[in-house]
Amino acid sequence: MRHEPNGLQAPDRPWRSRLHEVIFEADTFAGKAFDLILILSIALSVLAVVLDSVASVHARWGDELLIAEWAFTVLFSIEYALRIVSVRKPFRYVWSFFGMVDLLAILPTYISLVVPGSQYLLVIRVLRVLRIFRVLKLANYLNEARQLTAAMRSSRRKITVFLFTVLTLVVVLGSLMYMIEGEESGFTSIPQSVYWAIVTLTTVGYGDISPITPLGKALAAVVMILGYGIIAVPTGIVTVELSRASAGRISTQACELCGAEGHDSDAAYCKHCGARL
Amino acid sequence: MRHEPNGLQAPDRPWRSRLHEVIFEADTFAGKAFDLILILSIALSVLAVVLDSVASVHARWGDELLIAEWAFTVLFSIEYALRIVSVRKPFRYVWSFFGMVDLLAILPTYISLVVPGSQYLLVIRVLRVLRIFRVLKLANYLNEARQLTAAMRSSRRKITVFLFTVLTLVVVLGSLMYMIEGEESGFTSIPQSVYWAIVTLTTVGYGDISPITPLGKALAAVVMILGYGIIAVPTGIVTVELSRASAGRISTQACELCGAEGHDSDAAYCKHCGARL
Amino acid sequence: MRHEPNGLQAPDRPWRSRLHEVIFEADTFAGKAFDLILILSIALSVLAVVLDSVASVHARWGDELLIAEWAFTVLFSIEYALRIVSVRKPFRYVWSFFGMVDLLAILPTYISLVVPGSQYLLVIRVLRVLRIFRVLKLANYLNEARQLTAAMRSSRRKITVFLFTVLTLVVVLGSLMYMIEGEESGFTSIPQSVYWAIVTLTTVGYGDISPITPLGKALAAVVMILGYGIIAVPTGIVTVELSRASAGRISTQACELCGAEGHDSDAAYCKHCGARL
Amino acid sequence: MRHEPNGLQAPDRPWRSRLHEVIFEADTFAGKAFDLILILSIALSVLAVVLDSVASVHARWGDELLIAEWAFTVLFSIEYALRIVSVRKPFRYVWSFFGMVDLLAILPTYISLVVPGSQYLLVIRVLRVLRIFRVLKLANYLNEARQLTAAMRSSRRKITVFLFTVLTLVVVLGSLMYMIEGEESGFTSIPQSVYWAIVTLTTVGYGDISPITPLGKALAAVVMILGYGIIAVPTGIVTVELSRASAGRISTQACELCGAEGHDSDAAYCKHCGARL
Repeated sequence: MRHEPNGLQAPDRPWRSRLHEVIFEADTFAGKAFDLILILSIALSVLAVVLDSVASVHARWGDELLIAEWAFTVLFSIEYALRIVSVRKPFRYVWSFFGMVDLLAILPTYISLVVPGSQYLLVIRVLRVLRIFRVLKLANYLNEARQLTAAMRSSRRKITVFLFTVLTLVVVLGSLMYMIEGEESGFTSIPQSVYWAIVTLTTVGYGDISPITPLGKALAAVVMILGYGIIAVPTGIVTVELSRASAGRISTQACELCGAEGHDSDAAYCKHCGARL
Repeated sequence: MRHEPNGLQAPDRPWRSRLHEVIFEADTFAGKAFDLILILSIALSVLAVVLDSVASVHARWGDELLIAEWAFTVLFSIEYALRIVSVRKPFRYVWSFFGMVDLLAILPTYISLVVPGSQYLLVIRVLRVLRIFRVLKLANYLNEARQLTAAMRSSRRKITVFLFTVLTLVVVLGSLMYMIEGEESGFTSIPQSVYWAIVTLTTVGYGDISPITPLGKALAAVVMILGYGIIAVPTGIVTVELSRASAGRISTQACELCGAEGHDSDAAYCKHCGARL
Repeated sequence: MRHEPNGLQAPDRPWRSRLHEVIFEADTFAGKAFDLILILSIALSVLAVVLDSVASVHARWGDELLIAEWAFTVLFSIEYALRIVSVRKPFRYVWSFFGMVDLLAILPTYISLVVPGSQYLLVIRVLRVLRIFRVLKLANYLNEARQLTAAMRSSRRKITVFLFTVLTLVVVLGSLMYMIEGEESGFTSIPQSVYWAIVTLTTVGYGDISPITPLGKALAAVVMILGYGIIAVPTGIVTVELSRASAGRISTQACELCGAEGHDSDAAYCKHCGARL
Repeated sequence: MRHEPNGLQAPDRPWRSRLHEVIFEADTFAGKAFDLILILSIALSVLAVVLDSVASVHARWGDELLIAEWAFTVLFSIEYALRIVSVRKPFRYVWSFFGMVDLLAILPTYISLVVPGSQYLLVIRVLRVLRIFRVLKLANYLNEARQLTAAMRSSRRKITVFLFTVLTLVVVLGSLMYMIEGEESGFTSIPQSVYWAIVTLTTVGYGDISPITPLGKALAAVVMILGYGIIAVPTGIVTVELSRASAGRISTQACELCGAEGHDSDAAYCKHCGARL
């Protein structure tokens, strides 16, 4: 999103491009200072929302926190407006991930005027803290994050298959358990039993619902060992992909002709349609 | 199961092969439409069974859901009959995985006339949803699923040895715990203690039974650390096999033009010079 | 332990070597039959011990199970005697892993005459079932088991370091928690708190003891995330070693001169002292 | 920290360097004996602190344990003084990891004169036991520990990104849950709900707080499956790094006699022809 100043754009350079540099970039002193203050404000505003939810704090500092919340919201609203103004393609920004987060970070306060309680949604602001990686110019961190994301993306399909299988499994196992245990043990309905199956398969094991009959316990044991075993699958998938990403084999480039992804980093031509990358 | 039309088979082509194409394949428009409607019906019918198990829903919509259940069952029964008719080797289909699932998806309703409550077995219908991978022609997903299955199959023996060892372990540990803790702590019998050992070793930890005596807690701590450690074994096994299966994606083909090797097995063009492979 | 029949041993071949063949080997029909009957007996005797611990079963079938227990014990005692007689180096057998297990499988019944309740130790018999791998000539399974064991052995040191660190960690964390939470929350002593730390770090989470104060919950959260993270370490260790064992890189050979292990499978000379392997 | 005796340092060699050899090194008999006695004392003193926290032991042996605690503290204080005296750069030692631990191992007893209860901090002494690796000259263990540490260090950034994402996630999920479930289910504040989110995401699952409403259970199920899945990430990261660290054990050296490559980095002789490397 960097400017490529040319004759036509020259007139609005003075203020718009400078504003853009301060708000969106972190290369200049002003840009860095702006971002650091912003992150600090975000952290403080999230802390205010979190603390306000504690009854004893709310009783003692409720009014102060309310003022702080509005102050931060007004501040972030101004910032949001400035971002829209300073960007050359406002819609692109508005619909981008951070554009959405920036909007969601101010909306709840206004909505809370109509729907009380919705101000807790403000914690979504915490997502804005993720900008920290850019601010601190943590290129290395960004690189690591990109490797993680790439590994996730290329294991996307395998994980979908895995999740689909797990979901099918918990529906079947939950229903079986509902028929075996019945309502006396807390398995009051199939959705409830599916919830139990998820709690057990993922080895969370709250213990709010647990089998009582011998047959139910036997099935539960099977579910546990299953869950203990199949956790190996996502782990194996991610490890293999990370190992590849780490070896630098897969680039994030997409073919311009056919749109295919997953090319090796040393590829010069698309392996699907033969177009130059 | 594709047709290889020849002179002898020609007579019954008109209706049987067309029916087969619609029901079993998903290449034509009719075939795709049929499969999509089928999957939607399956999802709806599973939802109906699941919702019917919730007491409040049953009280309010019980009759409607019963009618829906019978409607879906009749529909699926007709579909099952059509599948048998349209296939050239009916027995092969009947005994195949999906053939069994298709049958199990209608049986419980009929059985529930005799044995009340068995209709919840209908959730087995959810397995039919797995056809979705074929319908959407998600060849890539199928490929991933095949890799996962292959990795599972080739780690079959190692996992058997592992499971056998774990089962032996929980029997011994459970019995020890039964002798140490006794009935006061809830360890009322060896099967019960083995159940506890499984709950603990798999790190599920319901807390419905937990040791009270210091010696029992010490042994429990050993079981936990054991379980925490040996989860590494199935994970290691699957990762190694997945890594192999994944490595199998690189073909041994060399480009005829530039001689480069190391192409992915799904590559159609050389990634270095763009020539057809 | 196979016989190398020579002139001197010829006289006692008729009965001793034949007995050995039946009892210890599984190549002949008699040997196979003996082993299969043995494993069946073991499974039945373990089942008897397990069932006898269930109060309702004991009340109803107690006498029958007691008789069965003694019958199996006498049978296994005879078998144990025959094993000692048929083997050329009895002491070697007696002190071997299976020799110990075979003895432990009969001792508890005799001890229970003096110390009531000790008969539950009989479940140790379940370990004898591990002979099944030999009986069924599951050479492939044995091979897989050997790979697993080799991977375990070569990751022995890393796992020791890991366990040592974890144990140090839970002692420190448990003590901290004891000071923070105190006796009101169930953290009645440091050993108790260390037990809690193990329950939490291994992500078992019974919930029989859990923090109540905010500070305690904060520390607990740290322990959980720690446990969630460091499970990666044993998994990583075992995966790497399994990957090596699977690649066939490490042989189980030890140098005859310096006793060093961990040689590559293609090694012809000891890498530490240069002696021929 | 070994001495490089030269003319200027000669005068103080007699006692200081000898003291250093006994206290800091473990090559001589005196050095080994000193370290073994030290580790035994540490283990005993930690055991004393741990046992003293058990009410029944304190009631019976409280006075004896108090005397033991002071005896150990005086002993360790003398040892600490000797270490400072015997070292040529005392400040470097004082600020080193073990220097800090050595100080923290004696401070709590003195502080407990002013602040009762702080003596439990003495368990930090357990960290001193880590010296055992050096004492027993477990060079191999040190090597393994170094590999583990190296893997950890090089995966530091990826793990930071991962932890940051997880923390952001639990704040958002906890807040959502606070809004959905409310105070009746035990979700009394956002910090409390974040604690629940951590308990659930890490699959610990105490069950002290668990959702009651259907919507809350649905969200909890999502959190569980998320936690079950993303544990794959740290595992994958550490496995890849360990695999690299482990691969680093193969040196690039080639045998001068037979030219074979791929020797382990600890190899002294060629594994193919037995020649010195």
